[in-house]
Amino acid sequence: MKLLRYGPKGKEKPGLLDANGKIRDLSKHVDDVAGKVLSPASLKKLAKLDPAKLPAVRGNPRIGPCVGSIGKFLCIGLNYADHAAESGLAVPPEPVLFMKAISAVCGPNDNVEIPRKSKKTDWEVELGVVIGTEAKYVSEKEAMNYVAGFCVINDVSEREFQIERAGQWDKGKGCDTFGPIGPWLVTKDEVKDFNNLNMWLEVNGKRYQNGSTKTMVYKVPFLVSYLSQFMSLQPGDVISTGTPPGVGMGQKPNPIYLKAGQTMRLGIAGLGEQQQKTVAAK
Amino acid sequence: MKLLRYGPKGKEKPGLLDANGKIRDLSKHVDDVAGKVLSPASLKKLAKLDPAKLPAVRGNPRIGPCVGSIGKFLCIGLNYADHAAESGLAVPPEPVLFMKAISAVCGPNDNVEIPRKSKKTDWEVELGVVIGTEAKYVSEKEAMNYVAGFCVINDVSEREFQIERAGQWDKGKGCDTFGPIGPWLVTKDEVKDFNNLNMWLEVNGKRYQNGSTKTMVYKVPFLVSYLSQFMSLQPGDVISTGTPPGVGMGQKPNPIYLKAGQTMRLGIAGLGEQQQKTVAAK
Repeated sequence: MKLLRYGPKGKEKPGLLDANGKIRDLSKHVDDVAGKVLSPASLKKLAKLDPAKLPAVRGNPRIGPCVGSIGKFLCIGLNYADHAAESGLAVPPEPVLFMKAISAVCGPNDNVEIPRKSKKTDWEVELGVVIGTEAKYVSEKEAMNYVAGFCVINDVSEREFQIERAGQWDKGKGCDTFGPIGPWLVTKDEVKDFNNLNMWLEVNGKRYQNGSTKTMVYKVPFLVSYLSQFMSLQPGDVISTGTPPGVGMGQKPNPIYLKAGQTMRLGIAGLGEQQQKTVAAK
Repeated sequence: MKLLRYGPKGKEKPGLLDANGKIRDLSKHVDDVAGKVLSPASLKKLAKLDPAKLPAVRGNPRIGPCVGSIGKFLCIGLNYADHAAESGLAVPPEPVLFMKAISAVCGPNDNVEIPRKSKKTDWEVELGVVIGTEAKYVSEKEAMNYVAGFCVINDVSEREFQIERAGQWDKGKGCDTFGPIGPWLVTKDEVKDFNNLNMWLEVNGKRYQNGSTKTMVYKVPFLVSYLSQFMSLQPGDVISTGTPPGVGMGQKPNPIYLKAGQTMRLGIAGLGEQQQKTVAAK
């Protein structure tokens, strides 16, 4: 099942994508794609609906972030061996956790703002994991029971803010619009091969990232279990699991960063595509 | 005005503290002490109410975190010169930002959980700033226009998770119950001397922290302006502004950390007191 949220910013309605790629409205069944709607029981109920009988959404509405009311936006750093290498850093002995501000969340095709005074805004295609059930001190073996599904995330990053501005990465990770999420939350029953998904990212038509989740160091069940040792995970929490090689900072001979007026396109096999235009922050 | 939230966890009602220290119910006037209720116009309306005419709350209810639906819990590190010294670190050339998970937020007198496998759970009394109006790229001069008020925060921290477990502080800052907030949101009109407030923290009756906001390196208006250069601040966002000396990690000759069964008491002049019992996480 591909769940999504459509409509103007802050007023998104819940929907699902039918087999023909049409959006069907879910407003009569759930308030939002968020919180308790992501529980196994709730997803089972939704899966029983006949999409053909749900109202078809007309026109071409904006697609919002595929999860509403996100509580935590947890991110894993340096989780692809080859990306760690291009960053000149060793694979960490255990996952590196940082957080993105919730105010950074936006729709998959919304404009991405280049912050004022930014010189090093960069891209990162990542596999997103959406929590469906509260998880605290869960084992790796049972971890997937707590996952609702997967989505595409662009972990947009300002490298100077992240690395050169007095410690802690959060400063360069949570700028407004730095968290495009979606287009869809694909429920886990449709993503059995989450350890072997191709993923890619292009800027102005040039492909920079071309990887696969199979080179991920710490895999999804491990990450869910690991994070749950430090804090409880709630339904609607999102985990961004790290990026493969090819970010702007890693380009040779010189890093390449985003400028206003460019277009990013990115996607993960089976999880859909995003497309963002970069604009200068006002 | 002292705004608060009372009642069972997750079902808190809005209230205010009257001049006699009695809780008066605000449910007929606002849904929650959160979001738009924190705007200047809304606070002005509430200030016009006659507390004596509001329903008095009976008994001795639990006090919840003084702000509901917090979007971001932003924290400033090493913001007191003498605390930086006790940590063996230099005052940073600009504020250090990290984030606490929203799931860490709890009431001012709720139990604080010592996480499983924790050896270094520590305390930090801090002045909390509550945002009242969306702020993006605001100047230091106008920054206070965006602040609703102040509160006491205990920035509970697990030092091993924070410092010794593969980079980034967030891992040791966001454990469940690591963010007691309150008892009250004191509106800024009542806290004109926010640069000169005594603050203290005791464990089992022994005073460890005894400081004042006057030794804060980066002051509140600067911090609000500074953070708004990196991300927009929303009504209900909370900024914890750093701790004075006397944390467990800084004790001589050896650090002292929390164990289950202890009691923390902490407070800031004019902003009230917190009291937490430490318990082992289940």
